Amino acid sequence: MQNFIFRNPTKIIFGEGQIAALNAEIPPDARVLITSGGGSVKSNGVLAQVQAALGERAWFVFGGIEPNPIYETLMQAVAMAREKNIDFLLAVGGGSVIDGTKFIAAALKFDGEPWDILEKQAEVRDAMPFGSVLTLPATGSEMNSGSVISHRARGDKLPFNSEATYPRFSVLDPTTTYSLPPRQIANGVVDAFVHIVEQYLTYPVGASVQDRFAEGLLITLTEVGPQALDEPHNYEVRANLMWAATMALNGLIGAGVPQDWATHMLGHEITALHGLDHAQTLAIVLPAMLSVRREEKRAKLLQYAERVWNITRGSEEDRITGAITATRVFFERLTVGTRLRDYKIGGASIGTLVAKLEEHGMTALGEHGGVTPEVARQVYQMSV
Amino acid sequence: MQNFIFRNPTKIIFGEGQIAALNAEIPPDARVLITSGGGSVKSNGVLAQVQAALGERAWFVFGGIEPNPIYETLMQAVAMAREKNIDFLLAVGGGSVIDGTKFIAAALKFDGEPWDILEKQAEVRDAMPFGSVLTLPATGSEMNSGSVISHRARGDKLPFNSEATYPRFSVLDPTTTYSLPPRQIANGVVDAFVHIVEQYLTYPVGASVQDRFAEGLLITLTEVGPQALDEPHNYEVRANLMWAATMALNGLIGAGVPQDWATHMLGHEITALHGLDHAQTLAIVLPAMLSVRREEKRAKLLQYAERVWNITRGSEEDRITGAITATRVFFERLTVGTRLRDYKIGGASIGTLVAKLEEHGMTALGEHGGVTPEVARQVYQMSV
Repeated sequence: MQNFIFRNPTKIIFGEGQIAALNAEIPPDARVLITSGGGSVKSNGVLAQVQAALGERAWFVFGGIEPNPIYETLMQAVAMAREKNIDFLLAVGGGSVIDGTKFIAAALKFDGEPWDILEKQAEVRDAMPFGSVLTLPATGSEMNSGSVISHRARGDKLPFNSEATYPRFSVLDPTTTYSLPPRQIANGVVDAFVHIVEQYLTYPVGASVQDRFAEGLLITLTEVGPQALDEPHNYEVRANLMWAATMALNGLIGAGVPQDWATHMLGHEITALHGLDHAQTLAIVLPAMLSVRREEKRAKLLQYAERVWNITRGSEEDRITGAITATRVFFERLTVGTRLRDYKIGGASIGTLVAKLEEHGMTALGEHGGVTPEVARQVYQMSV
Repeated sequence: MQNFIFRNPTKIIFGEGQIAALNAEIPPDARVLITSGGGSVKSNGVLAQVQAALGERAWFVFGGIEPNPIYETLMQAVAMAREKNIDFLLAVGGGSVIDGTKFIAAALKFDGEPWDILEKQAEVRDAMPFGSVLTLPATGSEMNSGSVISHRARGDKLPFNSEATYPRFSVLDPTTTYSLPPRQIANGVVDAFVHIVEQYLTYPVGASVQDRFAEGLLITLTEVGPQALDEPHNYEVRANLMWAATMALNGLIGAGVPQDWATHMLGHEITALHGLDHAQTLAIVLPAMLSVRREEKRAKLLQYAERVWNITRGSEEDRITGAITATRVFFERLTVGTRLRDYKIGGASIGTLVAKLEEHGMTALGEHGGVTPEVARQVYQMSV
């Protein structure tokens, strides 16, 4: 096990009916800016529950935070928060809304040009307090301090994180996910699954607890993912999906182990060039990545085959191939295509994808830095 | 899954050499009271490392916090902290030292008679900030807010907890455990194992993540427990034991599931009457408890048999019996006796043990309140 530091102060309030608990978590005299995305939180009644819970507090709504939240939009929210003398932010939505709200919270307390938080990785020492009401299990943003923000004019997509940008609390009510479109559920399952894989499927460092936890989350997702599509109102299934997706990226399973994240980086370039959903790109890249890098990841691939997919017979090669195939079949069972051609994309753009990776400095990805542009090219080629 | 609230703000600093990191966690101008138990932290060099890390800060040592920490002793530490104008406490030791330090921290900020915190469960709203350097993997106190304190004169042993009594940080350096006596290691493994069982082995509520995490911790302990005795300087083994014991009782696996704790309560009476180690009493009571309550716990016992002990053949009765036997064999492999007679105790005291349980109001224990005095008597009888 590698040395590590782990701390996660976010309070999780989990279960049906818990939105009402907001009232006890926000100062009674707070002036609240509710941040949201599209109109779904209006149509599914979540916003009304939130507003009821806020009671007599002064509250305002800033809607329209996009998937892949945009700096320019968020700065409008910063201006609105200043104008309305807001002192508490409440994100109501999925990972993009929460990511965006982290940036708003940081920008409101930042002394200088907020874009520097992203471009110059300027230190965020303080942020306006904020909470979240999660409506889409996927990114884990509800229980971590990270955020990824895009700049429309510059075409950049940059991350930041800070000890100051953990949500004070996050309300996870599985019933808020009942009305999600199947595509968003499927994407969420794939996103959470690959978050776990990127922290697990590297090389062994004797971290039994982290491995067992990661495997437990992966098994849970293989069980509840298809059920979540088949039975949208099955509370137990949605509850397990929601909690697994949160635990997938709250720092716990990644503490003390090597991490990879090459699949995410190669996927980002596909989204940037072709506009695919983030999770679609992960479903495309991961099976190819595991195939190309089976030697580097051999020991953990065998462990993954046995413990997650119960593949214990056959040669080592057979078991590894079996685990990669099972992963692909799982994504496809979720109706997420696992090859570029499923999205009508051929091999012609691979040169551009690799060039973009290099342009973005992504020339030594993976747990050992072994994913060079040449390896990335192989992965893209295998994903056609 | 049941509704739940989960929050745990303690910062974990894990790994060899991490005691030096104390320096960054304690205010530079703090006046520090180091609290400790017996002399082992002196003889094994941990105290010297702590003192080196504290650098130029003013520090004082309060030693002699007992196993099952005593109110009267702790109040001496409170007086010393006031006299020395202490503003930060640093527990260096195992669960008893950390539990005791939580009480000292609370008492220092309590407006009134500190004993009321325990006897009247008076609310603890504030506590002096404190951290810990853990030297004994067992109780989980390093990452939770709970504490159990005894009053020598009154013969009471009472718990308290508060949002204010989470350690600010805990340093977990597995090498600090190398010099522990085998009996303390064995006791720690049993203690952590039974903590997990009390939050896991009840009845199914469809909590996949919590179940998988609990099973992962149990499997880890079955693997590393015997190794920890056989290879005291195996870093990887000690690291996994330490992290598993912390995760066993930091609130995570118990969130959203029923809990039992009857084994602990029956064990406490054995310690009070006969002076056995806490873990010894758990090793005695648990197999008997599972046997007596096999119907109430049937579904989870079958799951435990399959997933923790890999027992998948035979009738349901055979598998359940096999899992209970495997548990007993595991404790005995750790050299912890699992029957009262192993400690030269016969059945004569059972009446007294049951009467004490009743006197302490423990008349409806377990996940369904079904552990009546009569059931407790059966458990004690089966544990002879």
